[in-house]
Amino acid sequence: MSIAYLNGTFLPLDEARISPLDRGFLFADGVYEVAAVIDGRLVDSASHLARLERSASALGIRLPVSLAQIEAVQRELVARNGVTEGLVYLQLTRGAEAGRDFLAAPDIEPTLFLFVADKPVLDVPAARTGISVATMTDLRWARRDIKSVGLLAQVMAKQAARDAGAQEAWMVEDGFVTEGASSTAFIVTEEGIVTRPYSQAVLAGCTGAALTALAEESGITVVHRAFTVAEALAAREAFIASASTLCQSVVRIDGQTIGDGTPGPVAMRLRALYIAFARATAI
Amino acid sequence: MSIAYLNGTFLPLDEARISPLDRGFLFADGVYEVAAVIDGRLVDSASHLARLERSASALGIRLPVSLAQIEAVQRELVARNGVTEGLVYLQLTRGAEAGRDFLAAPDIEPTLFLFVADKPVLDVPAARTGISVATMTDLRWARRDIKSVGLLAQVMAKQAARDAGAQEAWMVEDGFVTEGASSTAFIVTEEGIVTRPYSQAVLAGCTGAALTALAEESGITVVHRAFTVAEALAAREAFIASASTLCQSVVRIDGQTIGDGTPGPVAMRLRALYIAFARATAI
Repeated sequence: MSIAYLNGTFLPLDEARISPLDRGFLFADGVYEVAAVIDGRLVDSASHLARLERSASALGIRLPVSLAQIEAVQRELVARNGVTEGLVYLQLTRGAEAGRDFLAAPDIEPTLFLFVADKPVLDVPAARTGISVATMTDLRWARRDIKSVGLLAQVMAKQAARDAGAQEAWMVEDGFVTEGASSTAFIVTEEGIVTRPYSQAVLAGCTGAALTALAEESGITVVHRAFTVAEALAAREAFIASASTLCQSVVRIDGQTIGDGTPGPVAMRLRALYIAFARATAI
Repeated sequence: MSIAYLNGTFLPLDEARISPLDRGFLFADGVYEVAAVIDGRLVDSASHLARLERSASALGIRLPVSLAQIEAVQRELVARNGVTEGLVYLQLTRGAEAGRDFLAAPDIEPTLFLFVADKPVLDVPAARTGISVATMTDLRWARRDIKSVGLLAQVMAKQAARDAGAQEAWMVEDGFVTEGASSTAFIVTEEGIVTRPYSQAVLAGCTGAALTALAEESGITVVHRAFTVAEALAAREAFIASASTLCQSVVRIDGQTIGDGTPGPVAMRLRALYIAFARATAI
């Protein structure tokens, strides 16, 4: 039985319960983070915790415990559940009130929920074969820099991608790819690696940021600019980054083969660099 | 103690509990409705239930019980709680799974939650004095026709409106007012009543639709077109419609007085017509 954490208590995940008056449930008034676990240790934790603090701060949601305490809870969940590889999920909402009002009371107690998923991260088929992506209109709101639980557009995009035989959706706005439904989007051209610069239009991806830093350290040029679907289709390579996928090649976009249809050398190298970085810095 | 309804059971509201793995909590993967209660009866119920069915259908969320059964639950909640005036809130989510995945299992059991608020609807100060509105950029997603619980942009807009001394936010996109954070927006010009036509850019308001029908029946022209903030500032009157406010005059927008700064005759007449309609048709 998986052990979760809810508001100060460790308990079996299937016994965890919240009020349906929680503003996370009524209003999507909350934020989240997903961090990878490799070798039984948390990957790139400082980066995820810093983003959690930024997201919560943008919404004026108070952290009920310190970032250090959150990290300790994450590590305890990994240990208690004996997770060697997997994910730690964290959700922080503004909390529950006695009724429903768009305007939250100032003294509301936040809800903090964490649980783990025990699953392979390193040796997964998608990393060997690459994935297919389907493009679609980006329906999301204007503050994608806040990692909020308002994920319905992403749920719809993932469903539409599955219906199109793809494993990820790349969302497109004004002709340019913003990002994946749950990942950062990259292409490789003669310029080097191309990825969209941070703004309110995209989430600042922790794994993507680490990948671009690793690329630059190893002499690969990274160009921060938006790219079109046509550019992606003509790219040498395409790939995604996220805490759960790390780095995976995109070998088809809307059914069209990218490069030679197999994971390309840049993405493969970056995946290896990232795994080495993750193992060296995990806590 | 207020009695609520959760997945087939009537229970005290403060004892109602859901799993934090509910997709309503993790992904805002759910829809809602709010209906008014006047004279201890449900107002405009068929319209709200039809919209619930449209919202759920748009997301592929199954109704766990029929609309007639939902209406019976709503009436029982009103009766059990002895509500004379107030609101019935209903939320339907795709349900809870054993873990977290953007792609929902096809056989997932939906979550249905209802509760009531016992509060004045007819004799409220805002109806006598009118309200102030603050305009702000519409940050919401592109499918506002679906009444989803992904309401974080509206929460932010309501907070910003309160900070500006206003009771409602009017959201503005490409220079045009889309709608209020939790209401439909109307102005009165020499053309008659002006309100935005239905599209994916706005929610099809049940109360607003009833108001425009009542206006037309009583010989007032209704023009369905988008209007700008400048038009609203120069309008003879402005007003909002929603299940909880019914029809309330807007007497200030961004601090500027509309008309003579008191509720105008068209809005006052429509409010009276709507209350008569509500009383005549409530069940």
